[in-house]
Parts: sequence; structure tokens; C-alpha cells
Amino acid sequence: MDSLTPQEITTMFLALGVLLLSARLLGELARRFRQPTVLGEILAGILLGPTLLGTVAPGVSAVLFPARGGGALVLDGLTTLAIVLFLLVAGIEIDLATVWRQGKVAVLVALCGVLLPFSMGFAAAWWAPQLVGFQPGPPPLAFALFMATALSISALPIIAKILMDLNIYRSDLGVTVVAAAVFNDLLGWLVFAVVLGMVGGDHGHAMPIAHTVWLTIGFTLAMLTLVPWLIHRLLPWIQAYASWPGGVLGFALSLCLLSAAFTEWIGIHAIFGSFLAGVAIGHSSHLREQTRTTIDQFVSFIFAPLFFASIGLRVNFATHFDLALTATLLVLAFSGKVIGSALGGRLGGLAWREAWGTGFGMSAQGTMGIILGVLALQFGLITQQVFVALVVIALVTSLVSGPLLQKVLRLKKPRRFSDHVVSEGFVRQLKAVNRSGVIGELADALTTAASLDGEAVRQAVLARERVMATGIGMGVAVPHARLEGLKAPLVAVGLSPLGVDFDAPDGLPAHVVCLILTPQQDDGAQLEILADIAATFRNESLRDKILQVSGYTQLLALLRSEKGG
Amino acid sequence: MDSLTPQEITTMFLALGVLLLSARLLGELARRFRQPTVLGEILAGILLGPTLLGTVAPGVSAVLFPARGGGALVLDGLTTLAIVLFLLVAGIEIDLATVWRQGKVAVLVALCGVLLPFSMGFAAAWWAPQLVGFQPGPPPLAFALFMATALSISALPIIAKILMDLNIYRSDLGVTVVAAAVFNDLLGWLVFAVVLGMVGGDHGHAMPIAHTVWLTIGFTLAMLTLVPWLIHRLLPWIQAYASWPGGVLGFALSLCLLSAAFTEWIGIHAIFGSFLAGVAIGHSSHLREQTRTTIDQFVSFIFAPLFFASIGLRVNFATHFDLALTATLLVLAFSGKVIGSALGGRLGGLAWREAWGTGFGMSAQGTMGIILGVLALQFGLITQQVFVALVVIALVTSLVSGPLLQKVLRLKKPRRFSDHVVSEGFVRQLKAVNRSGVIGELADALTTAASLDGEAVRQAVLARERVMATGIGMGVAVPHARLEGLKAPLVAVGLSPLGVDFDAPDGLPAHVVCLILTPQQDDGAQLEILADIAATFRNESLRDKILQVSGYTQLLALLRSEKGG
Repeated sequence: MDSLTPQEITTMFLALGVLLLSARLLGELARRFRQPTVLGEILAGILLGPTLLGTVAPGVSAVLFPARGGGALVLDGLTTLAIVLFLLVAGIEIDLATVWRQGKVAVLVALCGVLLPFSMGFAAAWWAPQLVGFQPGPPPLAFALFMATALSISALPIIAKILMDLNIYRSDLGVTVVAAAVFNDLLGWLVFAVVLGMVGGDHGHAMPIAHTVWLTIGFTLAMLTLVPWLIHRLLPWIQAYASWPGGVLGFALSLCLLSAAFTEWIGIHAIFGSFLAGVAIGHSSHLREQTRTTIDQFVSFIFAPLFFASIGLRVNFATHFDLALTATLLVLAFSGKVIGSALGGRLGGLAWREAWGTGFGMSAQGTMGIILGVLALQFGLITQQVFVALVVIALVTSLVSGPLLQKVLRLKKPRRFSDHVVSEGFVRQLKAVNRSGVIGELADALTTAASLDGEAVRQAVLARERVMATGIGMGVAVPHARLEGLKAPLVAVGLSPLGVDFDAPDGLPAHVVCLILTPQQDDGAQLEILADIAATFRNESLRDKILQVSGYTQLLALLRSEKGG
Repeated sequence: MDSLTPQEITTMFLALGVLLLSARLLGELARRFRQPTVLGEILAGILLGPTLLGTVAPGVSAVLFPARGGGALVLDGLTTLAIVLFLLVAGIEIDLATVWRQGKVAVLVALCGVLLPFSMGFAAAWWAPQLVGFQPGPPPLAFALFMATALSISALPIIAKILMDLNIYRSDLGVTVVAAAVFNDLLGWLVFAVVLGMVGGDHGHAMPIAHTVWLTIGFTLAMLTLVPWLIHRLLPWIQAYASWPGGVLGFALSLCLLSAAFTEWIGIHAIFGSFLAGVAIGHSSHLREQTRTTIDQFVSFIFAPLFFASIGLRVNFATHFDLALTATLLVLAFSGKVIGSALGGRLGGLAWREAWGTGFGMSAQGTMGIILGVLALQFGLITQQVFVALVVIALVTSLVSGPLLQKVLRLKKPRRFSDHVVSEGFVRQLKAVNRSGVIGELADALTTAASLDGEAVRQAVLARERVMATGIGMGVAVPHARLEGLKAPLVAVGLSPLGVDFDAPDGLPAHVVCLILTPQQDDGAQLEILADIAATFRNESLRDKILQVSGYTQLLALLRSEKGG
């Protein structure tokens, strides 16, 4: 058997390690600035690829990411596997039942949301191909169809993520948007399959396009009807008779890999098969939450960053950035998608506000658009300029979708109390043994963090405390007050191993005291933070561990990791 | 960038899918016959490789697992990644503190357990090389050192698995065996690093052996002292400020990949680096159980089967099996390891019984032995005959270690009640509304499963019920009896949506009734099954779901997956 040389193995692990580490670091940085993680992951690849490292230190770049030979092939194989697994997760996240339930509105939103940008993209690419970056070579029809698809496809994983972040994933509007996005993407993938079939014919696939189309439609229908039905009946057997959770994991991954091989074989890309395998598996209510989580976490945090970082390795983003082209495509994609989807929502009977919300919700083109771009680039369908433009569009639309949706629906993200605990406000061991002493200690701690009058804070909190005792039970107390002139909520956390009586309904002394200060005019802040504290401390294992933390960092680590957020 | 052709991508996914599916299926089959899963996984590869498929249908085999070109390289890269990840998990499982705590005995067991088989192996390979399969080519010293290492290394993951299965992982003997195995394997890997360094010099590594040795020792020491200390301080920061659990997952995997690249670069294999990275990460008590589980499940059930199945693709096991050679090596490995470890245990002050138990516990050579063999084969150090012999030794020692340990320590595996619920004994909806009626119904159900006298069973259970009511609270009742002539325990489960009074301490009627029949002479069975039922139903989510199951298969699926066993 041919095998890799030690040199190639070294390079492979080094390249994977550097890619993963940079992608995760920049992903986290993006998150700090409240941007989607994928933005940082792609940026990591751009920095490591020809755009920066390849220009500054071409020698290092050539050793780390060789363009030819065994190393390049293995990296290509691994990133292909990574997209396939990522699409499996995207498929599992889809709830087929949701699509049927929201029925009419979703179909209208999806159809109009596809038709408008698709026709705009097709018209532009057919009648003014130069305007959208056409270079002689590929069949004009295939190019026009591809551009139309690329401009009309949405990004289900990003959309789902945004809706979850805004807490409206299960609302009527959320369900409509998700269902429409599912329908939209299935349509988009089908058209794209045809396009790839048209181009793939030149790349060694002897199969006629007609066969590709029929096999695609047949396979899609089977994966949406018969296969989910079979899987739903099979899963309990696997869970009963195979090892847990290895049986289900092995089954899901095998199905994903075999479906990927099948769709690649019939002339469309492997990701199509794994996406449908995910839909078919995710449909079964017998799939346990833990199995989903294991696959999701490993893929989302290991494989997806590897793939998105590898995008930047393919192209020099500096030399191939074409502002006019990018702006043209962005306007076509964004206006077409938003207006089309909003009109579809109106036709389906939504009010204007909801219709616009649906439109903005559908506008994120992130991940799917990039995957299409990578494939089209590999097949020589588009130039590097168009590819760079598609990546930029994906980034921009993903960035603006959430904030616009939030604005038009006037939503606020519920505040988490751990976001407002400041390091100076953490008192490892409270000295005071009574209520007013403890409140004074915590108020003093907060005054060093913000320029507050410690005594005024103490009086305000004590005044509130006299109206109603703030022991909420489970050993937790939440003295609080609203303050004039405060800009943002501030929380201090104090630990008392001895316990302080806060008159809790369960009669237990408080070992954890959270002092909460919120701005006078901010109605929701206090309530949201109080609710979040109550929810957080309902977790028994967290209550056990919190008295052992030795500092602010450990406190934050505990609060964040135990809540799973 | 060089990339794979659609043909190669199709083959890659097909090969991975077929390997994974067969490995999981045969792994489950092995489990059914109470054998280690790894046995079935290796068998799957043997069936798909040159031994069977390559002989019966050489065309299919050549397409599926090409020996040359991009496809072969990608498969090699992926299986290399798979071993590296598997060794990461093996490293994480190790508890460094345990090694220090058990101190003297563990060191003595490890030293003697290494020294005896190592000297026996070295002596044989040095003075009678033909006897242990030497073929002219590699340096005789490297060959002798390798054989000595291969015969003296143990298999930590298998040993840990066997000890956990027998429920003695945390006992004194268990801790001694694990600590000794850790020490043993670290020693073994170090010697092996030297051997690889000696051979690797011919394979493009310009680094002198002395550098390799010093870098190896320095790296090992750093990974056992400074790095764990740093990680322990770093993890709370990552958990506090990075996304959860992506931050920790990304960090752990990046460290694993970079360490793998480093050890491969200094001239020893990548697995050594990932193993030590695992030890360093697993040492921190800040690593949450959920992170361990996610990595462990994905690697153990997806990557490990892929690697173990790929072993069989390398060699024709039928034509290269040499009985005399295999028997010689098996005797050297097994007797050396068992006697050496047992003597070490005696020196450390153990009683003979415990000393022998320690010896048998150390005897499993499974996974590590095979990984050494794969590398040695790649480096041309050993022949295919010796490789086949090493794989057989690994399988045989892993198979006999558990049963021998069980026998010498007179252990019994605690019985799980779900293993004794028979399909005829599941009553979806109990008709009776009183205690004696329900017992009669379940007794009747069991009589159709085994040839029992239904009325006698009912009388025996009712007699027991009169002595003590068997409602254990939480809506569960466990009427039971011992029966003369019964071979194995039998459990019937009946559901009653209305509830039946079984005089439970919490006063609640029983919705789940488990009728338990055990053999008269088997003292432990009844108690173990009762304890397991109580533990199982303490899980609230399981109690909620059990009334909804529609048949026996769903019942088993629920009982097994909720318990996580």
C-alpha cells in the first residue's frame, strides 16, 4: 500500500494543528465582538493562505500547505470529509415536520425568496455576463444557472443559529423562516446538482445529465419519505441491541459516508448525499439528544473550523478582490432575497413587519454560498474574482441578517447574569455575618469597579430589602436595586461558607449572595437577570461546586460551562 | 492546489463507509458473544482485505481500497489521524495522580513486568533471530529491541476497559494494575522511540539518534510536569472566556495535532505526541466530564473502528500465518508478562492471589501491540509473518486476560436487569387492577417464555409479597421469588397507566411492575437485579418515558440508552 512519508505526516499534523488553532482563536475573537464565529474561521485561513503568509513568507507557506503531492491530496481529502460531516449536522438540525406544518406561508416565502433573486441573477448572468464576472470557458447556461443558484440559496445553519440566539427559533415566525429556508435550500441544491452534472460531464463522469437528474430526484424523494420511515423503525432496534451510543453513531456516520459516495458517483457532489442523510436521520424522534450533541459538537468545533479555514488557502483575497463585481452581486443577492421573501410572506397573509422580518431572516447566505463557491471554483465554472465576491457576500449577509431582524422585530436578547459579573465584584469569602454587612461589603466591591457612591448603593439596596427579603432559597440571595445614571447592569457575587440569613422561603441561609444593580430606566434588565440567576442555581451540581472556586476566572468558567451556553 | 478527482472522492467515501459499517457490525457481533469489540473490528478488515475479498473478488477490492495513488494516500492519512486521535483518548483516560499514589507496588509490577518479557524477547531475537521471524535487512539490534518492546508492552485502553467491566477499576488492585500499565507503556514507548529513531534514519530523517533520544526524554518530562501544570491553569480561562464546549475541544485537539507533528518531526511516531498530550490534558481536574465524553465517543466509535479495520487491509492473514512463530511469540509474551508482573507484585508485598491477578490484568497486549506492529511493518523492521503473529498475540491475550482475572480473583460481573427482561415478559398494558391479579398476569407472561408452572410461580411470588410488600416508591414495584430448577434470572415488565397499589413507602401506586424470578441457589442474582432496578428508575426522565413505549424493542432501547451502558 502506498503510504505517506514521515515528512508528509509531520506536515499533515502541523498544518491541521495550525489551521485548527488559528481558526478557533480567531473564531473566539469574532465572538467577542459579537460576530458569527465563521467570520473568524475564514479570516484565519486568509491570513495563513496566499493572501498574507504566502506573500510575506512564501517558504513557510509552501512547507505548511504544499500545493502539490501527497500532502496536498490528504489535506483536500480531509477538508472534503469535513464539509460532508458539516452538511450531515446541517441536515440533522432540520425538522421535516416543521416544513409540512407551516405549509402555505413557508412555501410561498421559499418560492418567492428563490424566484426573485434567481431570476435577477439569471437575467444578469445571461444578458450581461461580464457584469457578474463571466470569463469564457464554461458553458454560459451552466454559468448563468450557477450564479442564479448562488444568489438565491440561503444558509440554513447560520439562519438557525441566528434565530436561536434571538430566542425565536420556536416562534411562528422562526418556524416559517426555517421551513422556508429548508425548502429553499433543497430547491437550490437540486438546481445546483443539474449545474454540476452539466459541468461534471467534462470531468470524467460518463453519466448523461438526464440520468444524473433522475437519480438525484429519485434519491431525494427516497431520502425524504421511505428512508426516514425505515430509520425511524430501525433506530429503536439499534439502541436496544447495539452498544450505546456506538451503535447509533456508527450507523449515522456510515449512512452519511455511503450517501455521500452515492451522490458523488451519480455526478453531483458528496455533500448533497450527507445533507439528505442528515435530514433522514434527524427526522426520527428516536434519535437521542445526546447523540445529536456528540456529533454536533465534534463536527461544529473541529471539522467545520478546519473546512472554513481551508477556504482562505485556495485564493489570494487581496489581489482577486473586485469591488464593483462584489457590490453588484451583493445588491442582487440581498435585495432579491429580502424583497422576494417579504413578498412571499405578505402573499401568505403575514403583516408587513413580520413579512420584512421573514425577509431579513432569510437573507443570510453564509455557509452554503461558500460551499457552492468552492465547488464552482474547483470545476472551473467561476473565476477567483467571483469566488472572492461570493465569500464576501456570504460574510456580509450573515453579519447584517441578525441585527436587521432584531431591529425590525424590536427584539432584545435576554441578558445573562454571568455577562455582568465584574472581576472586582467577586468576593471569595464574605466577612460579614448579617444581611446589611454583606450588602455593604458587596456594594464596596462594586464601587471600585465603577465610579459609584458605595454608601448610596448600600442604602438603595437595603431600602429594597426592607420591602421584600431577597433570599430565593437553595442557599442563594439576590439583593438588588435600580440606580439613576448607571449605564449597564452590574453584578457582584459573594460567597459565605458560614451562610447569612436572607429570610428565604425554604429557611436556609444564603451561601451565595448576588448583588444586582441595574439602570433606573431599563425595565427588563432586573427581571431578566433575576430570572437567569434563579435558573442557573436550580442546577444542583453548580451549587455544590461554586463554594470551591478560588477566583473570578474559575467562577466564570463554572457559570458558563455548567449552563451549557 | 492539487485536488482529488470525483472518482477518488467517490472511492474515499465508499471505502470509509464500508469499513466503518462492517467494523461496527462485526464489533457488535463480537460484543454479543461477550468478546472485546476490537476483535470484530479487526476481523472486518481481514474480510475486506487481501485475505478474503482480495482473493475472492480482486477487482472489487482494487477499486474499493486502491493500493496506489491519491486514494491510497488519503486512506493512509485518515487512518494515521485515527490512531493519533485514539491515542489521545488513551492518554486522557490515564490518571497521573494514580501512578504516584500507588507508588512502590506499581513501579515494581511495571519494572518486573517489563524486564522479564523484554529480556526474554531480546535474548530470543538476539541469539536465535530466525526463531522469532527475523529476515535479513533491518539492523539486528533494532530488530531485537523492537521484538523485546513488542513482547513487553501492555494495552492500557483494553486493560482499563476490562477492569471497568469487572467493576474493580477503582479498587487497590485495579489502581495498581493501571498505574503499572501506564509506567510500563511509557517505558515501552521510549524504547520504541529509540528503535524507530534507529530505523527512521534510513527514511529521510537527518536527525542523529542522540538528538532524537534527548528530545524525546525532554518532551516526555515536559508533558508530564510543566505542561499539565500550565494546562491546569489555562483550562479555567478557556472555559470562562471561550465558547463552550468549543474552546476546550479546539484547544485539546490542536494540542494533540501539534504534539503529534512534533514527535513525528523529531523522528518518533506521531502517536507518541498525541498520547502524551492526552495525559497532560486528562490530568487537569478542570476538564469537564462532558468534554471527555464527546471526544471519547466520537473517537472510540468512529475513528478507532476505522483504524482497527484498516489493519486487515495491509496483509493477507491466511498466507502469512505461521503457527510455530506465533506460538513461540505468544508463549514468550504471555509467560514473560504474567510471571514478571506477578513477581513484581510479590516483591511489592501482595498476597499470591493478588499478585497473579495483577499479572493476568497486565497480560492484555491488544491495541498497543498492534499499533507497534503496523509501524514496524511500515518501516520494514519485521516481516508480514511476524506482523500477523503480533496481531494474533494481541487478540489472544486480550481475550484471555479478562476471564483469567475474573477466575483468579473469583469475581462476578454484577447483573443488569435489562439483560434478563425477555420479550414475552413485556406486558404493554396490564389488565388487572390489584396486586395478585397483576402478579398472575406477569407470571403467565413468563410461563410462555420458559417452561414454568404459572400457578406455582404466582404462589411463590405472592408468598414473598405477604412477608414484605414490594412497592419501592417512584411508581415502581418489584414482586419477586426464587425458584428451584430455574437456570438464569427472568424478568417480566408490566405497565399500568392506572397504577396498582403495592404498599410503597411513598404511598404512590405502581405504574411499572417488574416481576423477578431468580434461581434458588444463586445468592447474588436477586439482590443485584433489585439494586439495578432501583438505580435505573431513580432516573426521572426514564420514568416519564417508559409509559410511552409501544413494544419490547423500544423498552430495551430506553433502558439501555438512558442508563448510558
